[in-house]
Amino acid sequence: MSGSKVIAAAPLAVSLGDPAGIAPELIAEAWRWRGDAGLTPFFVVGGAGLLAAAARTRGFELPVVPIADPAEAPAAFASGLPVLGDEDAAPAFGTPTPDGARLALHSLTQATALAVSGAAGAIVTGPIAKSRLAEVGFTQPGQTEFCADACGARHDDAVMMLAGPNLRTVPLTVHVALTEVPGLITRDLIERKARIVARALARDFGLAPARIAVTGLNPHAGEDGRMGREEIDTIIPAIKGLSAEGLAVTGPHPADALFAAHERDKFDVALCMYHDQALIPIKTLDFDAGVNVTLGLPIVRTSPDHGTAFGIAGKNLASPGAMIAALRMAGECAARRATTGQTA
Amino acid sequence: MSGSKVIAAAPLAVSLGDPAGIAPELIAEAWRWRGDAGLTPFFVVGGAGLLAAAARTRGFELPVVPIADPAEAPAAFASGLPVLGDEDAAPAFGTPTPDGARLALHSLTQATALAVSGAAGAIVTGPIAKSRLAEVGFTQPGQTEFCADACGARHDDAVMMLAGPNLRTVPLTVHVALTEVPGLITRDLIERKARIVARALARDFGLAPARIAVTGLNPHAGEDGRMGREEIDTIIPAIKGLSAEGLAVTGPHPADALFAAHERDKFDVALCMYHDQALIPIKTLDFDAGVNVTLGLPIVRTSPDHGTAFGIAGKNLASPGAMIAALRMAGECAARRATTGQTA
Repeated sequence: MSGSKVIAAAPLAVSLGDPAGIAPELIAEAWRWRGDAGLTPFFVVGGAGLLAAAARTRGFELPVVPIADPAEAPAAFASGLPVLGDEDAAPAFGTPTPDGARLALHSLTQATALAVSGAAGAIVTGPIAKSRLAEVGFTQPGQTEFCADACGARHDDAVMMLAGPNLRTVPLTVHVALTEVPGLITRDLIERKARIVARALARDFGLAPARIAVTGLNPHAGEDGRMGREEIDTIIPAIKGLSAEGLAVTGPHPADALFAAHERDKFDVALCMYHDQALIPIKTLDFDAGVNVTLGLPIVRTSPDHGTAFGIAGKNLASPGAMIAALRMAGECAARRATTGQTA
Repeated sequence: MSGSKVIAAAPLAVSLGDPAGIAPELIAEAWRWRGDAGLTPFFVVGGAGLLAAAARTRGFELPVVPIADPAEAPAAFASGLPVLGDEDAAPAFGTPTPDGARLALHSLTQATALAVSGAAGAIVTGPIAKSRLAEVGFTQPGQTEFCADACGARHDDAVMMLAGPNLRTVPLTVHVALTEVPGLITRDLIERKARIVARALARDFGLAPARIAVTGLNPHAGEDGRMGREEIDTIIPAIKGLSAEGLAVTGPHPADALFAAHERDKFDVALCMYHDQALIPIKTLDFDAGVNVTLGLPIVRTSPDHGTAFGIAGKNLASPGAMIAALRMAGECAARRATTGQTA
């Protein structure tokens, strides 16, 4: 882009996630594969002993480099995993503890604050167990809302996008019962989220204008009202409104056919009506490489699209693919913001 | 299987579908690839001239062999495509006509009757446009119900299964608005359809007991009632009831993760709550090779899982993968019934 200059992004801040889950071992693995994966330097907030113990469960010794400031991370990154601060907990892979939850909350709080201050170029969050964190003072429904609060943004402005190597999707509604979905789909919701998605894909992914494919709610997108009227009453007016604003929006598309190989090239992101419609295609295609990206915030935030997986933690069974993909994507988005100077 | 003997199955009856669509050219292509694809001999009811014209749009000359009885088809199949009867229509690819619809209805009616009588081992139906056929006297909602009527079976007993190379799924509800889905999911519906699926997979696919994975209706299968109660009130009791009957049923599984590569090996068929939940994973993985199989009827019936595609008919653009897969599957199911002597 003319007039822009390349500026090295600040290192990425990584929060540990629940230390009884698979995040510590996957963060250690990601550091190990940093060269092959082309990862931007990152550091972890807390958990130096835990991370070294987690690496041993994967069969390797992890050199940890204690740092006192994020600015030390890039120089340290080649020879060891930089860890900021002394907070730690005893390793207990597979068995969540209150100590572990407190460490997870501390790590998330600090890492987010460093992204907000600009000391970190992005935050990559390890998965937590919400109910466990709630027991030690976590009051938000999830990490996405936590990040929004930390930025002073409205929860509504934080939009979850799932991104795999083959596909990006955004669910318009997320963790609600299926019966509630039709009532929640409004023209305002579609338009508001589509605008956030379009701005974020331009700013963080260099996709301008992003081609947004909107799904129907009903089978065959309702077939002209024969199977549901939401397309006619709500979705089509929203698409027309967004098109009039200049967004590159198409649809409503029948959701069953939209994610076929020959259709996926025709759009940059699918705006889906509900959780399973957005997540089935992503996980069916790319279970081990899905990234959860929060769009619409002043900070860059990504996360591997998997949970704590307590059942397999410490057993050398979890794939680091999604953690590596989350770190790579955070690095790319942060670099784009640093280069273009668009930080909010 | 001890005591069983191998009996050559009767040839397969193929109905033309709407001759303005892609079915004629794909039937011709399937005959051309009969050797590589290992297809059981088949014949088409009607459309000799149309089929030859359709083959020319794909760049080859199709030898048509007129037959007066299905029993002549196996001997004729090596040297040409056997066509039963003189009924035909003028080629008009891409432009549906009443004459074409009448030919489609005749072809479907005759081919189904031959499967019911046992003269044909199965019926493979080309796609029709329901509204076009309705104009010439077709009174059923679709070909599945037509086949059920022809067998003297209840529409309820005919269960649609989608099968690709990687996955089989059954939608419990099909062409209804999403708002209606939760009210239609009853314990009786789940149990009744699961029993039909289990019997059909044993009889026609040699899977006994078939491993049936039942999805949840809500995100994360409701997460213990936090996002919808249908799993607790309806789906789990149905699964328990079916297990007590001896069926190999698991679930409710969160639908977003069930179709990932490492999960697909764990079940033979997924019983899904609604259209898109069942069709998104099939079409995302195997758009060009999906087969629609009707389970639960006295006859074997398959169909390529695509529509008439009037827009690309006659343009040498449509993939014959699904038609070939439908013919292969029909042949395999018919052979299994012939060998085991289980015809109903």
